[in-house]
Amino acid sequence: MSTRIQAVYRVKAEPSTIEARARGISVEQSVEMPVAPIDDPFVINDIIGRVEEIKDLGGGDYEVRIGLASITTGYDGGQLINMILGNTSLQDGVSLIDAEFPADIVEAFGGPNLGVAGVRARVGAKGALSATALKPQGTPPATLARLAYDIALGGIDYIKDDHGLSDQAYCPFSARVPMIAEAVHKAGQKTGIPTRYLPSLNGTTDKMRQQIVLARSVGLDGVLIAPMLCGFSTFQALKQENPDFLFMTHPSMAGGPMSPRFFFGKLMRLLGSDASVFCNYGGRFGYSPELCRAIAGWCLEDAPGLKPCLPVPAGGMELKRVPELLDFFGRDVMLLIGGSLLSAKDKITKETEAFCNAVRSY
Amino acid sequence: MSTRIQAVYRVKAEPSTIEARARGISVEQSVEMPVAPIDDPFVINDIIGRVEEIKDLGGGDYEVRIGLASITTGYDGGQLINMILGNTSLQDGVSLIDAEFPADIVEAFGGPNLGVAGVRARVGAKGALSATALKPQGTPPATLARLAYDIALGGIDYIKDDHGLSDQAYCPFSARVPMIAEAVHKAGQKTGIPTRYLPSLNGTTDKMRQQIVLARSVGLDGVLIAPMLCGFSTFQALKQENPDFLFMTHPSMAGGPMSPRFFFGKLMRLLGSDASVFCNYGGRFGYSPELCRAIAGWCLEDAPGLKPCLPVPAGGMELKRVPELLDFFGRDVMLLIGGSLLSAKDKITKETEAFCNAVRSY
Repeated sequence: MSTRIQAVYRVKAEPSTIEARARGISVEQSVEMPVAPIDDPFVINDIIGRVEEIKDLGGGDYEVRIGLASITTGYDGGQLINMILGNTSLQDGVSLIDAEFPADIVEAFGGPNLGVAGVRARVGAKGALSATALKPQGTPPATLARLAYDIALGGIDYIKDDHGLSDQAYCPFSARVPMIAEAVHKAGQKTGIPTRYLPSLNGTTDKMRQQIVLARSVGLDGVLIAPMLCGFSTFQALKQENPDFLFMTHPSMAGGPMSPRFFFGKLMRLLGSDASVFCNYGGRFGYSPELCRAIAGWCLEDAPGLKPCLPVPAGGMELKRVPELLDFFGRDVMLLIGGSLLSAKDKITKETEAFCNAVRSY
Repeated sequence: MSTRIQAVYRVKAEPSTIEARARGISVEQSVEMPVAPIDDPFVINDIIGRVEEIKDLGGGDYEVRIGLASITTGYDGGQLINMILGNTSLQDGVSLIDAEFPADIVEAFGGPNLGVAGVRARVGAKGALSATALKPQGTPPATLARLAYDIALGGIDYIKDDHGLSDQAYCPFSARVPMIAEAVHKAGQKTGIPTRYLPSLNGTTDKMRQQIVLARSVGLDGVLIAPMLCGFSTFQALKQENPDFLFMTHPSMAGGPMSPRFFFGKLMRLLGSDASVFCNYGGRFGYSPELCRAIAGWCLEDAPGLKPCLPVPAGGMELKRVPELLDFFGRDVMLLIGGSLLSAKDKITKETEAFCNAVRSY
């Protein structure tokens, strides 16, 4: 008997149709054909999705729990999302709000390489962490390297590429990454803080693999990856092939019918995010404080077989909000301030120092 | 000066905020930082997104047209979707409804390898085409091969793997594909119709590449791919590396804030879909007839530098609807009937014959 993923959907429906709707999802996400003509007992017993529970939430909303056979995922990242949301993502009035993963799924995907403790250890941090992003795209490698140097001099923990920096002609990965790595390393020798630089991976699996080889060759030990852009199979493979690497995940294209709490807090962690960037409240995105607290909670809560993943609220943060955000999230957080820090221009080292002091002195 | 992609968004906003909202999108999808501190003329002139037009559609809806520099995509599939929708996908009240791609983008991605004429030529068809899917997952390779044989004996044009067939332990790609390829080939020799089998790719880029090598080695010349699962960079690479291969695209996970017309009719075609599977009206999905007509129209309309892409309406179709669907879509269509055909069980060859006759005699 296969174990089952318990996938939980929020469904809008009439009371008279909810049972058929729930059965419809269980079939859509498994055999995707009428059930009547199926006579293979293995398919009937071990493959077809099972409606486990329908909860009436009132107001025409239901919570539907479907048991989906783990073996149908083939333990592959792309197939995992295909099975828990694929076709259902195309239907109106339904979203995936949670999934409980059985031990064989947890073991196969394995979660973060480093986890919160490892992300801290890399930079000798004890509490909350500081991070920023190198922008804007269009800037040549040497200028980005100089910017990274000035920021690193301010003692920041992590510097990532903006997710818009890919492999454009005006700033190729192979030119940018060695220069920035060297600049950050030099600054770290001055400050005594081993600031880490996370370049942004892009392209196919094999291109990303080559980018990791390059990153490794210039002394780096972590990267930024956007799993919704490259596909979950690619993220899964790279994470497992590089168990000593830190993977920070970026949310680009994560705006489908999937609850952010589940996506950022649970799915990214299962696949291997050490630090999950999400949209903070009060910035450029519409997430509520409650949602952000739930995302952070799911990143960090005890989960057998999975290291915790550091929540990274971001998206329009400002220095003056640091105390408020630390009061809100506590010490298990990495605060990512990007554009607002860059606005300091030639005072950026000082501004970064102020940011890092505010974070460290908390 | 870089050419610009004209990306068109539908935005819900108050009249007093729409201008700021439009500027916000133009920044989010380009430099993603405050514009004031940017002083590099190249970034200012050639990188920052430009609000080109804001149209009031009434009722609080606006159509916002943003010019996004083509060079920021690096001419890479993953980065293309990152730049036209990435972070904006996470914001409420906004969806991507269209994009006009300049010649350099069209040339770099190149569109379908075969196009409609090529998809027809493969099977010697003149008008509309017939297709089905092998299901349910959980069925062993030998049984799927027998099923494929019985279907192919009915004279169908294309048989694809269900998108749920990946590389599970109970039906590995390497065991399944050679058996089904042989069965379909044998049936084709009997019927005189060179029925094509399209196996479903899964996993990382390199795994998919190996799967294409295997498919090629057993005489196949086309595949099924789900670009939202594997990532656009992977689809782009495989399509370009295999210019003689037919790529049918599957919509799994395409349910984000992107208009289906744009996704199925324009984006899949740009990336290289020869045959774009989408959710037909009157089946298991909520698409309207008007939307389906628009998708088909966009797949087929004249577009300099891009072959047309065959629209493939699917998702709960039945044999009795064939005349209606052909009246609706015309001859430039591939009708995909999956589960309902499989319900015929041991009469499946006859049922397939009836389906193919209805399509061919139109």
